[in-house]
Amino acid sequence: MATRSPFRVLATDPTGARAGVLETPHGPVETPVFMPVGTHGAVKALTPDQVAGTGARILLANTYHLAISPGSDLVAKAGGLHAFMGWARAILTDSGGFQVFSLPKAEIREDGVTFRHEAGGERVTLTPERSMAVQGELGADIAMCLDDCAPWPCDRARAEEGVRRTTAWARACRAAHRRDDQALFGIVQGSVFPDLRERSAREIVGIGFDGFAIGGVSVGEGTGAMLDVVGRVAPLLPPDRPRYVMGIGKPEEIVRAIGLGADLFDCVLPTRHGRSGILYTARGPLRIRHRRYRRDLFPPDTSCGCETCSRFTRAYLRHLFEAGEILGQTLASLHNVHFFLETARRARAAILEGRFGAFRGEFCAAVERGQPDPEGEPEGAARRRRRAPTK
Amino acid sequence: MATRSPFRVLATDPTGARAGVLETPHGPVETPVFMPVGTHGAVKALTPDQVAGTGARILLANTYHLAISPGSDLVAKAGGLHAFMGWARAILTDSGGFQVFSLPKAEIREDGVTFRHEAGGERVTLTPERSMAVQGELGADIAMCLDDCAPWPCDRARAEEGVRRTTAWARACRAAHRRDDQALFGIVQGSVFPDLRERSAREIVGIGFDGFAIGGVSVGEGTGAMLDVVGRVAPLLPPDRPRYVMGIGKPEEIVRAIGLGADLFDCVLPTRHGRSGILYTARGPLRIRHRRYRRDLFPPDTSCGCETCSRFTRAYLRHLFEAGEILGQTLASLHNVHFFLETARRARAAILEGRFGAFRGEFCAAVERGQPDPEGEPEGAARRRRRAPTK
Repeated sequence: MATRSPFRVLATDPTGARAGVLETPHGPVETPVFMPVGTHGAVKALTPDQVAGTGARILLANTYHLAISPGSDLVAKAGGLHAFMGWARAILTDSGGFQVFSLPKAEIREDGVTFRHEAGGERVTLTPERSMAVQGELGADIAMCLDDCAPWPCDRARAEEGVRRTTAWARACRAAHRRDDQALFGIVQGSVFPDLRERSAREIVGIGFDGFAIGGVSVGEGTGAMLDVVGRVAPLLPPDRPRYVMGIGKPEEIVRAIGLGADLFDCVLPTRHGRSGILYTARGPLRIRHRRYRRDLFPPDTSCGCETCSRFTRAYLRHLFEAGEILGQTLASLHNVHFFLETARRARAAILEGRFGAFRGEFCAAVERGQPDPEGEPEGAARRRRRAPTK
Repeated sequence: MATRSPFRVLATDPTGARAGVLETPHGPVETPVFMPVGTHGAVKALTPDQVAGTGARILLANTYHLAISPGSDLVAKAGGLHAFMGWARAILTDSGGFQVFSLPKAEIREDGVTFRHEAGGERVTLTPERSMAVQGELGADIAMCLDDCAPWPCDRARAEEGVRRTTAWARACRAAHRRDDQALFGIVQGSVFPDLRERSAREIVGIGFDGFAIGGVSVGEGTGAMLDVVGRVAPLLPPDRPRYVMGIGKPEEIVRAIGLGADLFDCVLPTRHGRSGILYTARGPLRIRHRRYRRDLFPPDTSCGCETCSRFTRAYLRHLFEAGEILGQTLASLHNVHFFLETARRARAAILEGRFGAFRGEFCAAVERGQPDPEGEPEGAARRRRRAPTK
């Protein structure tokens, strides 16, 4: 099989971390890389220009959500998802498989999965063939196989059923996939059962794909169990193909997974937390609505070079959130997306220089120490003033 | 009195419409001009770069709101409002006088007005001296006198009281105003009573200001009465000073007021309507959430060159609003702010070419005909399909 979206590994660190380049019809993607999530064909609260300004080279969009609204036929009529959403760089679409896990009313059968759409009560069925057809119409650079993402926790029987179905659906997706300009990635399932993960990896690799994903992680199993799975599966995947760990995670989880040989990541955390005023920093998350930032004229993250940190203060961001201004959500999301991308860029630079192990140690220690704001007003002072009687 | 923010009239159309340039410490402002509103020190849903991208040269911010939160002392500590909000072009701050009209719990006394703040129950008092001090700390290019904006409808006695107080407060503001780098504009009140408007104009002009505003309009009196007031007051104002009609309005109202010799305008409509999915177009407002736009791949306004109309379709905007994406509000606000600015720019070009009368006629006729979307699916077709039984 010829590889679509060819991948080159440029360097492998002693830890096993890899630096590479994934070629796509919409430009090269340097890995390791974080993919911001644009569920409905829009990264929440950000314009495509703002997303591009963070240095993002590839986005993730959701097949299930776009199939329901506005419909993949309309997206195709508009010239594909790139044109529809005004994004000229690469896109990866998921398959709808994660919604098997995340939506309450998904009914799984052997040939596919039927969802009762939350709002309208309308039923939507995704089979491997339908997922391929929809992803073909969306026209992303990378399509994902439909998989059966088992819930957490789940017993061995359910996990085994998931592996069996995921393999059958992967074969069907492989057969149904039509677009020569679109890469297709297979997904490994198996929950936290080592032998099932190994079996799934063997079967999916045996079918042959342009890249391989580790699915069914970050579903509640915890960081330790998640990293165990990544560490077990990654070495079973072909070294010349990109490895995508789906839906993780916190920045330190991403850095640790990079150390296990993973290349691609996506997560809603930067935009979800951005909208609620939580900003990621090199020293842990910062809750900008806290009163201690009321008169704090430092940038949100003193070591960050993003648009938000270059031009605005903690006091201004806090003011925007207090006033209910949408701009607060935009600026916080912008910073967070930049932070996740920058974390992967810093990891890549460290890999190329053979010092990833040290980078990982320092990065994780600083985040986990969690002192994002030594410059801020001491917590006690704000509390005392708040208690003082007002005149 | 030396003029701060000197104003030059470059051309006067036979209608009386003027094209000019207002010099400010933060760059020249070509008039007629529309000022986007940034109540809390942020134009709603837009970054400063996005606002600058629409061509805006001057913004309005609200003294009352900023005095309450984050406080003008903090803004001063941050280097003034320009630095705090990241806006390098000109700013005008209102005085808090409009909140006399718009907030329910304002108590007016001879020396000023006391507000009970909606949220906290905290009391805030604005006197002429306090308004000047706060506006001095905010550091806008143009400050406004504290005025008594009478409600609508109001009887002659209340309107007369408003004129008397507005004159007294204007004198006090004039005396209390300190910053040499900040222009101070006087405000004419008098509700819809012609003789009171004339008296107010005479008194305010007599005190002497860098520019003159017509306040107490667009408070419910209707377009006809509003234009009557503008048409009566404008000729009483010094021709060599800028004339600012506060808080108007629809694009066609702005164009008509330009024809009466007004130069500056501000209004929340572009951002407020943008956030609810109403887009202004050369052919009247377009409600983007309507089902008829579901598969409409034309730009929102086919004659518009803004970022939104250059890059996105009606179908995409509708999809964003249907999906509850903040980006929809941003893109619609961006278009609307651009549309208001562009309307003033087109009026200016027409004045300079001596064809403003024709422009006004064509502009208002097209908007008032109100057929924003001849390319869209006919309304009937969408309605018929909606009624059809779904399978």
